[in-house]
Amino acid sequence: MKLIDGGVCAANGFKAGGIHCGIRKNRDKRDLSVIFSENICSAAAVYTTNLVKGAPLTVTASHIANGKAQAVICNSGNANTCNANGIEIAEKMSDLIANGLGISPQDVVVASTGVIGQPLEIEPIASHIGELVDSLSDNGSDEAAEGIMTTDTRKKEVAVEFEIDGKTCKIGGIAKGSGMIHPNMATMLVFITTDCAISPEMLKTALSGDIKNTFNMISIDGDTSTNDMVTVLANGAAGNAEITHAGHDFDIFMKALNTVNVNLCRMIAGDGEGATKLLECKVSGASDTDTAKTVAKSVICSSLLKAAMFGSDANWGRVLCAIGYSGASVDVNKIDVSFKSAKGEIPVCKDGSGIDFSEDKAKEILLEDEIEILVNLNSGDAQATAWGCDLTYDYVKINGDYRT
Amino acid sequence: MKLIDGGVCAANGFKAGGIHCGIRKNRDKRDLSVIFSENICSAAAVYTTNLVKGAPLTVTASHIANGKAQAVICNSGNANTCNANGIEIAEKMSDLIANGLGISPQDVVVASTGVIGQPLEIEPIASHIGELVDSLSDNGSDEAAEGIMTTDTRKKEVAVEFEIDGKTCKIGGIAKGSGMIHPNMATMLVFITTDCAISPEMLKTALSGDIKNTFNMISIDGDTSTNDMVTVLANGAAGNAEITHAGHDFDIFMKALNTVNVNLCRMIAGDGEGATKLLECKVSGASDTDTAKTVAKSVICSSLLKAAMFGSDANWGRVLCAIGYSGASVDVNKIDVSFKSAKGEIPVCKDGSGIDFSEDKAKEILLEDEIEILVNLNSGDAQATAWGCDLTYDYVKINGDYRT
Repeated sequence: MKLIDGGVCAANGFKAGGIHCGIRKNRDKRDLSVIFSENICSAAAVYTTNLVKGAPLTVTASHIANGKAQAVICNSGNANTCNANGIEIAEKMSDLIANGLGISPQDVVVASTGVIGQPLEIEPIASHIGELVDSLSDNGSDEAAEGIMTTDTRKKEVAVEFEIDGKTCKIGGIAKGSGMIHPNMATMLVFITTDCAISPEMLKTALSGDIKNTFNMISIDGDTSTNDMVTVLANGAAGNAEITHAGHDFDIFMKALNTVNVNLCRMIAGDGEGATKLLECKVSGASDTDTAKTVAKSVICSSLLKAAMFGSDANWGRVLCAIGYSGASVDVNKIDVSFKSAKGEIPVCKDGSGIDFSEDKAKEILLEDEIEILVNLNSGDAQATAWGCDLTYDYVKINGDYRT
Repeated sequence: MKLIDGGVCAANGFKAGGIHCGIRKNRDKRDLSVIFSENICSAAAVYTTNLVKGAPLTVTASHIANGKAQAVICNSGNANTCNANGIEIAEKMSDLIANGLGISPQDVVVASTGVIGQPLEIEPIASHIGELVDSLSDNGSDEAAEGIMTTDTRKKEVAVEFEIDGKTCKIGGIAKGSGMIHPNMATMLVFITTDCAISPEMLKTALSGDIKNTFNMISIDGDTSTNDMVTVLANGAAGNAEITHAGHDFDIFMKALNTVNVNLCRMIAGDGEGATKLLECKVSGASDTDTAKTVAKSVICSSLLKAAMFGSDANWGRVLCAIGYSGASVDVNKIDVSFKSAKGEIPVCKDGSGIDFSEDKAKEILLEDEIEILVNLNSGDAQATAWGCDLTYDYVKINGDYRT
């Protein structure tokens, strides 16, 4: 398996594009994206568990209930959520792009991201739909990735190449993250494409299984979005025998999907709103996987620890505190903690109590922009990783005046 | 019932004091406090549910297991938590103050607040214990309130006077709040004194019952502290017939206790780390009290909403979002939201969707320093209030470099 370029266009038979249509005032920022497969795809999606759901999610769920889709349309700048006419607008977006592409509206995945509770005008989309279709190209992943960004500072794209059934297959994805990120059985916007042939059922199994260890293990700010969605389209263009059951081929596909998703997770967490650092909490020695996940996620969610990491302050007591209130059943007196980065690793807590360590060395390690928080519960073999970011002045700045 | 001055010294028979002993480097800040009753008191306490518990909590729980106590000693600057010798140090603190006051160490409530995981030296306390005892006075509540402050910017004291059994009774309290505040069945440090005669059992019942609607409904940053504790000492000096069962007298006592605690809650929330505003989320129309509490607390905990309030931005979509992921079972399409302050009230959401409102008026309302977020679920008669604060640059600043 190897990482390759191309994002959602890496897989054969997929095109993508993105334009500025006017939903956002800034004319230099694309705000409307499209992904299109030459032929109909197996499709699977997972959605936010927030009871407040964006209208596009309801429409998408209806469209792909048959396990099939062929195109994605997504705007940024407005979430089309908590609007009285939300469903109608999302259906119109589907109709417009379906008409432009000559496909059925029932085969369109529709998504929106941005401010909640402001009506989404259809006019800018309707008047630019031809331009959007024209933007489709074999190397348009970059434009599509830009079109779905909100306060993201970096485009998030990844792709991998692997072999199944003697055929070269590819999976690629784009994502938008930034704020309101605390996925719960679903996640922020992620669009994944693959040319691997796989049945809708197995695609759903693969996606639902993988997100538990990837997107559901990220938190930027503890706020589970109303518009979280991950979709995968698989068009079978690689020519492999369709994966229709568990086994060797499915395992390879799962590994490839996991590689794409872990990379996107790291990109999303490292580019959290205002973030200066990617935080990875790796929990080992847990009695079971649920305990490891609960602990890892609690640590990554602690505002106090996040602020300490921003200040490169080895305040490990906040790690212990977050483990203690996580709800997981752990023996506090067995916990070891160390901080690690490209500059080395430093143990700071042994058996639940502080140990002498060099503050200078700790500071050097924590000044890096990718920090691992290593927690060993010394109570078993289970492990888990969660991803997050530091809490910074810029998070407050961005969110103190987001709508203007 | 009326509010009076005097804090923990308002009730007859209580003295308090506070000094600088040297745990903190800043010589202008008191760091050691004492509260003392002339006679032995009924005592009750509730503690953090964090599995990582400060050593002083373990020692206090042991000391007041018999429902009796006569004095409180509390230092700030060091939490005496996650230290191998924590229990030993907390017992030494008890021995020192008991010896100075001529009482039994078993009748001492001991508490610590500050940095976790750094050994607490007993020497500064031992060498200043005489000075601490000498600081006791009838109007020493102010000094005691200062001595327990960490990053608090304001002292937190309140007292009320009421009548039971024809006798004038008083309850007063001091608190320290600021950061790592997300109480769960217990809370930050709060010391309450009363001269009302009440049995240990009824005192415990009163305290445990009240905190569910007061301290457990505050959140500054979602981090449940390791050292949360609320204690009440009742010395009976008012001369009323001891309250030993539920009924009229107990109801009056509960109301007085609630008044003290709600006032302390508002002080703690309004002085959250870096806070510029007190946020009160009042949920009404809930199907049951648990639903109302869950919704109120979720709204108050949302980092995104907190940042929006800092920016005086009427971003009500974040209120809906926080309700949606709260875990409470609510009908999203029935939710009404408005913002209220001394400048008026403005409805912003009706039946789960946005309504037209004046951004100028909303800004005027949200520029105040006490903001009510009113949520009507329109599904029943239950209600609840939660308290919190905005998320600001200063929160990040304070916690980015707390230990130095």
